Amino acid sequence: MVEHRWSLSTLVFSVAFIIVVSYSAQSLALKHSSRFLGKFAATGTHFEPPQFLYETRYFQQRLDHFSFSELPTFPQRYLISTDHWVGPQRLGPIFLYCGNEGDIEWFAQNTGFVWEIAPQFGAMVVFPEHRYYGESIPFGSAKEAYKDATTLSYLTAEQALADFSVLITDLKQNFSAKDCPVVLFGGSYGGMLAAWMRLKYPHIAVGALASSAPILQFEDIVPPETFYDIVSNNFKRESSTCFNYIKQSWDEITSTGQTYNGLERLTKTFNLCQKLKSTVDLYDWLESAYSYLAMVNYPYPSDFLMTLPGHPIREVCKKIDGVPAGTNILERIYEGVNVYYNYTGKEKCFELDDDPHGMSGWDWQACTEMVMPMSSNQDSSMFPPYEYNYTSFQEECLNDYGVKPRPKWITTEFGGHDIHATLKKFGSNIIFSNGLLDPWSGGR
Amino acid sequence: MVEHRWSLSTLVFSVAFIIVVSYSAQSLALKHSSRFLGKFAATGTHFEPPQFLYETRYFQQRLDHFSFSELPTFPQRYLISTDHWVGPQRLGPIFLYCGNEGDIEWFAQNTGFVWEIAPQFGAMVVFPEHRYYGESIPFGSAKEAYKDATTLSYLTAEQALADFSVLITDLKQNFSAKDCPVVLFGGSYGGMLAAWMRLKYPHIAVGALASSAPILQFEDIVPPETFYDIVSNNFKRESSTCFNYIKQSWDEITSTGQTYNGLERLTKTFNLCQKLKSTVDLYDWLESAYSYLAMVNYPYPSDFLMTLPGHPIREVCKKIDGVPAGTNILERIYEGVNVYYNYTGKEKCFELDDDPHGMSGWDWQACTEMVMPMSSNQDSSMFPPYEYNYTSFQEECLNDYGVKPRPKWITTEFGGHDIHATLKKFGSNIIFSNGLLDPWSGGR
Repeated sequence: MVEHRWSLSTLVFSVAFIIVVSYSAQSLALKHSSRFLGKFAATGTHFEPPQFLYETRYFQQRLDHFSFSELPTFPQRYLISTDHWVGPQRLGPIFLYCGNEGDIEWFAQNTGFVWEIAPQFGAMVVFPEHRYYGESIPFGSAKEAYKDATTLSYLTAEQALADFSVLITDLKQNFSAKDCPVVLFGGSYGGMLAAWMRLKYPHIAVGALASSAPILQFEDIVPPETFYDIVSNNFKRESSTCFNYIKQSWDEITSTGQTYNGLERLTKTFNLCQKLKSTVDLYDWLESAYSYLAMVNYPYPSDFLMTLPGHPIREVCKKIDGVPAGTNILERIYEGVNVYYNYTGKEKCFELDDDPHGMSGWDWQACTEMVMPMSSNQDSSMFPPYEYNYTSFQEECLNDYGVKPRPKWITTEFGGHDIHATLKKFGSNIIFSNGLLDPWSGGR
Repeated sequence: MVEHRWSLSTLVFSVAFIIVVSYSAQSLALKHSSRFLGKFAATGTHFEPPQFLYETRYFQQRLDHFSFSELPTFPQRYLISTDHWVGPQRLGPIFLYCGNEGDIEWFAQNTGFVWEIAPQFGAMVVFPEHRYYGESIPFGSAKEAYKDATTLSYLTAEQALADFSVLITDLKQNFSAKDCPVVLFGGSYGGMLAAWMRLKYPHIAVGALASSAPILQFEDIVPPETFYDIVSNNFKRESSTCFNYIKQSWDEITSTGQTYNGLERLTKTFNLCQKLKSTVDLYDWLESAYSYLAMVNYPYPSDFLMTLPGHPIREVCKKIDGVPAGTNILERIYEGVNVYYNYTGKEKCFELDDDPHGMSGWDWQACTEMVMPMSSNQDSSMFPPYEYNYTSFQEECLNDYGVKPRPKWITTEFGGHDIHATLKKFGSNIIFSNGLLDPWSGGR
């Protein structure tokens, strides 16, 4: 249980503003495994022609800003548009989106807000990519960059912030825009980066809009049950019977799996393409669906993680509740989860990822500094109960990456328990925006 | 000329709050060369029994806080006194002195202010040592730590600030002192660290007293002539004839050195123990004396860098001006500089360091991130005219350390041109204290 739980909690976060690592489907296919990546790419969203006009450029960055080790530089990709910029004379602002854990083009295409308001403000728009993602890969190739703890060593939030700072300082000089204010934007992990950058580089950025940025989801600052409780409440809020069906389903899955031919029956019930190897994989698949649904539970149809109707949790629960009385609970669950995984109706069967521990950038970050404890409460959560266990988490990280996490580092470097006082007295001009249904809202 | 000038500008700064690296006299004797170090140690000041009572402890620090490379940890020494601390219940403050480029015991002994006010505030006092100095040496020995660019790579201000932050976070936890306010202190480079730490770690420290901290002595923020102009004005202020004698002396030295037996004559005039090899060494020796004199031009007798009378510049000029009319200008200079180098009258002759480019911690820092351009103005300065030349500076660093300086990094990381706006809006509770005669006052 421990293993799959950890995988979920980290994966869920990484897909909040999804990992769309274009190379992962190729060179790292065997090891890399964001389960919805293949599926997501298949929907075509990522490869749609860009909605917004920008130029793609590259900037050579130091691999390690904080030491003087002789290391190769790497090309950081950034997207830039000066179409609406009113220029330095009129102090035209620079909107800087803090790229998060994925291909920057995808974030640019899914952050309409920045593009929409830029003309109003006469702003330049810059989307720098986060190091080790998309095309901004050190050591010449993703294969090399993701090889081991030594090469991954420089994939940290602090280095990413320094990348942004060095890049924007250089851009401002090239555009003679020294006095033009820089305003930061970001969502999820990128929102955390935006808030942290405003705190750490106040001489560079005058403010930040940090959306859905759980900067308090560390150590014991918020209760570890927060995330799953909010997801669960989103379901309960739509329908308490739906909540209960889901809550009951786990035991049903486990007991079915233990019977003769049980895994075959589950395979059939859930219309899986390959025979289910372990009920753990099914747990993962379902838990992920519920978690992602809570993150994209928009009141309008959307095509962000998956093609979905408006109020998707409501639709899922309608299906779960709506089937005729006496229907097997697992069939109910299948009907519900279909809304998430197959709203377009194009899927003939479902592929479960059987290697959720492959190497991915976010998993590395979660194993090093982005250590976010998560538990599932026996009573209030609809997920299987689980108590966060740091010791086993650490063991896994040592096994998977040969690295020991530093769970207290983020709060030492950026602030934790006391951050409210700091934000009040020090970190002015940071807007933390989030919906209350957002499962990450508890970490803010 | 270029070479010796660079050496001066970096060395001067390092001795402002002097480098007292106890090992340098031993294992690195041949390469390390703070010229006044031997002399300073010989005065015994450094080895006097401590005036203030504290405990010496060690804390294991990561060598690189900003990556996950597998590197050995190192023991950071810190001095701590809880004698006057009123404890966590009464929110007793923690006074944290940001150790600078030298042995922390020496700084502790020379920072009476912190010790004097601690009882009044019921404060705990902590003096952590800066990495790579004193006893806080990575890689097991100074010889290893100072071996080359690879081992020196982690000697940076950012790493030092992270050391302080990690240490104080740990101490606060151990003392159950989470809510006790931390106030930072520091002078010279340590003052810069105090100001920067307040800016970068506002969640850890509520304020900073940054004494004599030239955080603007980078790039082109202040004119490069500032430092030498202030030193020169300190002499001119006492006596314009003294200023003029010094200003004229350089040509006199050069022309004397070019004559037959000139170096012998200079050796004799300046009472040097070894025969002068080059007039450049004499330039260095004299320039250093004038610069240090300006830094410690206290109105009372002191024993900080050297044993000196009150108003030492006044005393130096009295000597220079006071010798009988017709006295050779170099003899005047010798009389003056004797006040600095031999006020106690114990020196029989003077040792000039003939290897000012040996490896030292501060020279490394100056060659990497602490790049402070300094020129000497033909008209306003009493020093030989010199125009700062980044290209040759960079070449020297490549030659000496195999490292390329990053002259724009400090301003990117900590702020530069715009720092006043940042300090006003963001970095509250930082006091920059300095005397206007202090040559570093121009960099603030």
